[in-house]
This record gives sequence, structure tokens and C-alpha cells, in this order.
Amino acid sequence: MKTLDVKELYEQLDRYMGDLVCLQGWIRNHRKQKEFGFIDFNDGTYFKSIQIVYDDKLSDFDDIQKLRVGSAIEVEGIIIESPAKGQSFEVQLKKLVLLGDSPEDYPIQPKRHTREFLREQAYLRPRTNLFGAIFRVRSVAAMAIHEYFQSHNYVYVHTPLITTADCEGSDQMFKITTLDFNHLPKKADGTVDMSKDLFGKQAYVTGTGQLHGEAFAMAYKKIYTFGPTFRTENSNTKTHANEFWMIEPEIAFCDLNGLMDIEEEMLKFIVHYVLEKCPEEIAFFDQFVEKGLKEKLLKLVHSKFVRIDHHDVIDILKASDRKWEFTPDYDDDIAKEHERYITEYFDGPVFITNWPKDIKAWYMKVNEDGKTVAAVDLEVPGAGELMGGSQREEDYDKLLKRIEEMGVDQSTVDWFCNLRRFGGCYHSGFGMGFERLLIYLTGVDNIRDVIPFPRTPGNCEY
Amino acid sequence: MKTLDVKELYEQLDRYMGDLVCLQGWIRNHRKQKEFGFIDFNDGTYFKSIQIVYDDKLSDFDDIQKLRVGSAIEVEGIIIESPAKGQSFEVQLKKLVLLGDSPEDYPIQPKRHTREFLREQAYLRPRTNLFGAIFRVRSVAAMAIHEYFQSHNYVYVHTPLITTADCEGSDQMFKITTLDFNHLPKKADGTVDMSKDLFGKQAYVTGTGQLHGEAFAMAYKKIYTFGPTFRTENSNTKTHANEFWMIEPEIAFCDLNGLMDIEEEMLKFIVHYVLEKCPEEIAFFDQFVEKGLKEKLLKLVHSKFVRIDHHDVIDILKASDRKWEFTPDYDDDIAKEHERYITEYFDGPVFITNWPKDIKAWYMKVNEDGKTVAAVDLEVPGAGELMGGSQREEDYDKLLKRIEEMGVDQSTVDWFCNLRRFGGCYHSGFGMGFERLLIYLTGVDNIRDVIPFPRTPGNCEY
Repeated sequence: MKTLDVKELYEQLDRYMGDLVCLQGWIRNHRKQKEFGFIDFNDGTYFKSIQIVYDDKLSDFDDIQKLRVGSAIEVEGIIIESPAKGQSFEVQLKKLVLLGDSPEDYPIQPKRHTREFLREQAYLRPRTNLFGAIFRVRSVAAMAIHEYFQSHNYVYVHTPLITTADCEGSDQMFKITTLDFNHLPKKADGTVDMSKDLFGKQAYVTGTGQLHGEAFAMAYKKIYTFGPTFRTENSNTKTHANEFWMIEPEIAFCDLNGLMDIEEEMLKFIVHYVLEKCPEEIAFFDQFVEKGLKEKLLKLVHSKFVRIDHHDVIDILKASDRKWEFTPDYDDDIAKEHERYITEYFDGPVFITNWPKDIKAWYMKVNEDGKTVAAVDLEVPGAGELMGGSQREEDYDKLLKRIEEMGVDQSTVDWFCNLRRFGGCYHSGFGMGFERLLIYLTGVDNIRDVIPFPRTPGNCEY
Repeated sequence: MKTLDVKELYEQLDRYMGDLVCLQGWIRNHRKQKEFGFIDFNDGTYFKSIQIVYDDKLSDFDDIQKLRVGSAIEVEGIIIESPAKGQSFEVQLKKLVLLGDSPEDYPIQPKRHTREFLREQAYLRPRTNLFGAIFRVRSVAAMAIHEYFQSHNYVYVHTPLITTADCEGSDQMFKITTLDFNHLPKKADGTVDMSKDLFGKQAYVTGTGQLHGEAFAMAYKKIYTFGPTFRTENSNTKTHANEFWMIEPEIAFCDLNGLMDIEEEMLKFIVHYVLEKCPEEIAFFDQFVEKGLKEKLLKLVHSKFVRIDHHDVIDILKASDRKWEFTPDYDDDIAKEHERYITEYFDGPVFITNWPKDIKAWYMKVNEDGKTVAAVDLEVPGAGELMGGSQREEDYDKLLKRIEEMGVDQSTVDWFCNLRRFGGCYHSGFGMGFERLLIYLTGVDNIRDVIPFPRTPGNCEY
């Protein structure tokens, strides 16, 4: 007798109909009648549960009726057509073994729990419909990203997390150490002697792999990173976490327009992939989390993204009769309210290009006007800024000038600058916060609910 | 005219033969004759370079002859059959644009560099044949891992790196902090007040996702992690790094034998996948790094892995007439020399099972003998221990007893123990160090040479 995943049953029902099979999983719900019983059985390999039916002809009928929600069981049963509405088959129970009991006070009961309550049960919440679906979509979307890049000849690069390079301001990075805080080695001047630490100097865990990614793009033409990222921001909002995952592709011989082509193609690929692989999950989100989600996603796949300069966006914002909390400004970033307006205005995703250089990073290519950089943010309806990228400054001298202007410690990025001297070329890259993508794909609006074990200020449980 | 990746050319040569195409990449070598020139051109998408031939009929012949190794160029040319031996085609140059110059003192010249020298040029070394191949295999092997697990209904889980849980001894973990080392907040008793830190207590970056992985395996049945991992070990050997990548699958309803089935199937899948996707790279390693590598890999795919108890391994070691540096002991771990001997003895991969409990982790299932745990290490010829796994202790009371015996801080793993109360079941998991796998796949014997930017004690450059 074959032990099956529930997913295999759903995918190849014709093959298994009438067969005696073995299943292992958990009781999601248990409804008992005098002579019958119905177990909602789920093994986590598929969104949907299976109904297991049993009757009092089984010698251990009384024991089975005592089984509680959450218990782990192994069942043998025959796949039969179901008389029940809305399901194509059920399992007629032949034999059941209780593998792991669950107590009366098991926290995940078959009723509606608030997301706030479930956040406090982070280690149990993937057992619910909602979080089970969210983290399955997370896994599938991750695979979509790998499939897109690998099939387009990109090399996946594991850039280091521990770094001594001043990628984006060391005050925004976590320090790491093996030193004992209560017995720190001191220098003659009384300050801490970091040369005694494992790496011989102060090291950090980084918030970007871009600099290292560029080095590899200069060897492989097209690379991507996909890994965890850290920020020290002490901010409790729905979109901030101190640990999250990022995708950072970097492409040689690619300008800003080429970059937008890639971003658009990649995003459509991912959305299409998730729609194909997770139809049950998307239908569930559409019904219970964000009405119209599926239509939103389908529409994106078939849309042509708008491309517009930051300057022209400000024009549109200024021309609007909206009352802005933050006044639109040609020299400034745009606020969340502006992002929302502009995606509504164009009714779809919008690439905003050529931003004021003073509000963007030092490694971005300065345009000929001397005022803007060849940067691009992608704004999508409902999720705001999903990707941020730029053409990189490929001119050695101009880059050094920007490093000086922006107060970056050049000694830590000398090697990065050298990439411009040794066969450098025009190149571009972007970063996509993976959780932003998941918020967009699931309709769930809080980053804490799309990360398995979220870390936010004051919260590092489990 | 189409801009192509070199990989596309090699894969669909028939399609492009005779076409005028555009290519972008770098000069690997440049041989000049009076009326001709030959450029070894590589764009990083494929192991092999392409030969570009040009002659003095080109108006900029003299300029082209001055081009130096390492320069970035864009070329237009016609794909023609090659008269040269050992190559099926070449590019007849029509037009060349220099995109990025390279100086005379460019460090990566077309000659043999030592790996030690190239380690000091970590940001440039992927441009060499050897490292270009290593990091492409790294990317392909990573994809193989995702394909194996995703196609077997596993969910990819991003377990947190920042943790406060005592997974494996906090003295082996890096501390992270946002506090200023030179101005640490103090408590009344003079010790550092970690409640003032971002998470309100001392946090670490972790060396394992297993505990969190188990929580998700109790929801999804089969999960895997694949992400960076940290160790503070102050040890400078060929196999130690302070940052590396790990794969940690965790499977519910799986015992030790089932676990070995999965490990064996997965490893064969990965090796087969890399042989299929990277034939040029494997042939190169076979020729220049480890003679017989390809045969070793093919043999593994078609072998049946041996399964033997730790006790019986010690019997074999004791019965041997080898002179051991470390005396084999039934109560002790085995040394590298023993690992080597046992894989030679069986002439292939060996699963060693049921180890003395005192030398293994607290979460492993204690066997009925009370002395051993249901742990398994996989030893492979030439790479030593490639994977380590175990059936996990699923009995709540026994687990608590082990936690007490081994001195683990239970308060930090309460939730983990609770997994045994809420529908727990027999389950197993293993960890595979990704770099160990790469050492096995490439024949390169130093972990510093399979990590893009390696971090070891005293070394955190770039």
C-alpha cells in the first residue's frame, strides 16, 4: 500500500480512485455523530483538507470518536467518490493509528483566530488555513524567482552577510561580535579594542549584497542574490522588519531601460507562476483577505507598465486637487500617499525614473543634467514601492567624487571602485524586498504575517 | 540584430551559424599577428570562451590591436565555422566598441595564478576559468537543491537568523547589537543592560534553522531551509569558515531509515543534475583539479550507500592493522582518519548510524538501549562528513530530561518542546553544509575557494 501526500491525491485523483492508501497528517476538525464520524484531515502538502469518514462498524469506533483536533494520525482508507457537496472524493476509513495526541487546550481550534493572536503562536500558525497558504505561497514565489533567473542564464551568488564594508552607513547595520560585553578589551585611550575581535576589526551584518553582486556581474554578466538582509531601524510599522529577504540582480551591459524590461518581465513571470501553482491559495486570499486579488494579479500579467520621470510625477501630483499631507516637491522623495495616487492615476504599475540625486545612493549613475540619477522605483497598486534600482556609476572618477560628497569611507570600498578600472562597463541592478512581493501576492498587509518568525523592535521570540 | 549570451550560441549553434550577432563581454586573451588578431572572448554565461578573429581590412585594425586583457567590449560579427582545431565555430569581427578599458597591471592575466594569490583578489577571481567554474557550479547545485525539494512537495522555509533561542550553545553564536561598545548602558550591578538593545535582550545570529524548521514540518510534513549560517569557531583549517550556507530538511512521519532514503536520493539527484548542466566545468575540474572526479561522481549516482552502526564501524577500525593517531573508541566520535578509512573500506558513501548519545545533540531520539541516539552521519569518499541528521526525540518527557542533562536553557526552547504536546509525531531531519557538497563536486579542497567572499578568523575583507 502506498503512503501518499495529500497533494498527490488531489493531482492524480483518477489514478488513486478506489485504491486503499495510507495517509499521515493532522486532524483539523472532527465532527461526531452517533453512528458516524467525519475527520477533516490535512498533511500540509496541499491547501485543501480531505474528509475521512468512518462508522461504528470499526471495532475501535469509540476510541476514534475521542480523537481531538490537532492530533497526528496515520490512516488507511479507500478513496471513494463523495456524496458531500463541493468535494470530489473522500476517504473511507479502514484503520487509524494515533501518533501524537493533542490536549483540550490546543491553541489552534477550528474557529476564527485573530492574526494578532496567531502572531503570538508563530510556531503553530502555519497549521491554519491562512498562514498555511501564506507560507506555501512564500515557498512557491521563491522558486519562481530561482526559475526565472536560472532560465535566463543568471548566476545565483551568495554574497556575504558579515561585512566590514560601509555599504550604506554603518549606523544602519547590526554590529556582530564574539567579545564579552561585560569584559571588553580596552585600548590605551580607554575605547574598546576591536582588533581583539574574531575578524580583527568591527564587523557588521549587512543590509545589501549589491556591492559584492556587482563584482560578480563583471564576471558573469548576469547575477542575482536571494538571501536574508538586516536593518536596525527602530520602527514599528506594517512594512518594517529587522530581518527580511531580498533579491538583488545585477546586470552588466544593461542601462536603465533594459533594467525596467527585466523588472517587468520578472514580476509578470513570478505572478503568473504563483497563479498557476497556487490556485487554491489565491482563491482563498481573494475570498477572505483581499477581494479582487486574483483579478489584480491577472491584470498585472497582461498590463504594460508605465514609465515616467520623477519630475513628471511631481507635475501630476501638483496638478491634482487632492489635499496632500506632504507637499510634492521636485527635489524630494515621494510619500506613501503620492505612491498610491500615482498607481491609481495610471491604474497599474508605474516605473518612476530619474530621481533627484541628493535623496538616492552614492553608487547611482549621475545623469547628464548633473541633478538627477538614473534610478528607478517600481510602484505597484496596493503594495507601494516593490523594487528600487538604478544604472550604476561606471566612471571611476565620478564615483570617487560621489563617495567624497556623500561621506562614504572610501577605504572600505576601494575594491568596488576598482571594478570601474578593470574592464568596467555600463551596468544596472535592482533590489526587491521579498516580503513586499508577498504582501502584494497575498493581500496580507502586515509584514509580520508573511515572515515565518518575524523580528521587529522588542520582538525576538522563538 | 540579436544580442546574445555566449551560452545561447553554444546551445543553439545551428540556429545562429552564418548570422550577424552582437555579443558583450570581456577579453580573456589577445594574440596579435601582423595582419590578423585573435581575441578570446568570454561573457561569463558559459564556461568556454569564443574566438573572435579580425584582420587588417577593418579600418580600426590598429586600435583593436591595442586592446588589453580584461577590457569590456561589444562586438558585432558573423558566426562562421572555425578552421581551428578543437572549436566548432568562431566570430568574424565586423565591428568592435571598447566599453571599458583595462590597464597593463590588471591582476588577472592569462597565465596560471596560485589560488592563494587569487584569494586575495576575491572580487576579481570569478573571471578566471577555475573560479568561474566553481561559482557557476555553486549556482547550479543550489538550483538542483531547490528543484529536488520543490518537486517532492517540500515547503521552503526562511527560518530566522536572528534568535534568542539557545539552539546549540550561545557561546558558539555571534552576538548582535545596535548598542555603542564605547557607551554601553549599565545596570545597577555594573553589568551591561541588554534590555536597552533593539530586541530588549541579547540576540544572536544563529548556526541552525532546525528548531524553527521542526515547527514548520509539524504543519507542512516536509520542509527544507537553505540559507546562510554562522559559527564563531576560531579555527583556521581548510574546512572551517565563519559564514557558510546550510540546507536543513525536516520531515514529519519519517524515521531514521526513511531519512537515509531521502539523503541518498537527494544527493544522487544533485550530482546527476550538476553532471548534466555543467559538463564543461566538470571536465575542467577532472583535468586540472581532481583526476577521476567525473568517474567518482558517476559512480556515486549508481551506487547503493552502505548503512552501518557506529559500533560496527569501531569494530572494523579496531580490526584494521592501520596505526591510528586517535584510538577508535565505542563511546567516542570518529576522527578524520577513520572517516577516510571507512569510505575506502566500503569503496563508496557510508551512512554511520546510532551514535553514543553523549557526543550528540540534545534533541536527538534516544534509542531503546538508553546509550545511543538515532543519529546518522553520511561519509563520502574525499569529502568526509557531508550530512548529519537524526530522528528527533518526539517524547515530551524524555526531551525535557535530555534538556536538563545537557544544560540547555529550557525557557528559550519551551515552544520547541511544546511541538511534542500538540500533535507531535516521529520525525527526522538532517543538515548538509553546502560548501562541503561543493568541495565534493569540484574537487577543490579549501572552503575559502568555494565561497564567493569567505569569512575566516582575521579575514573579513571586501
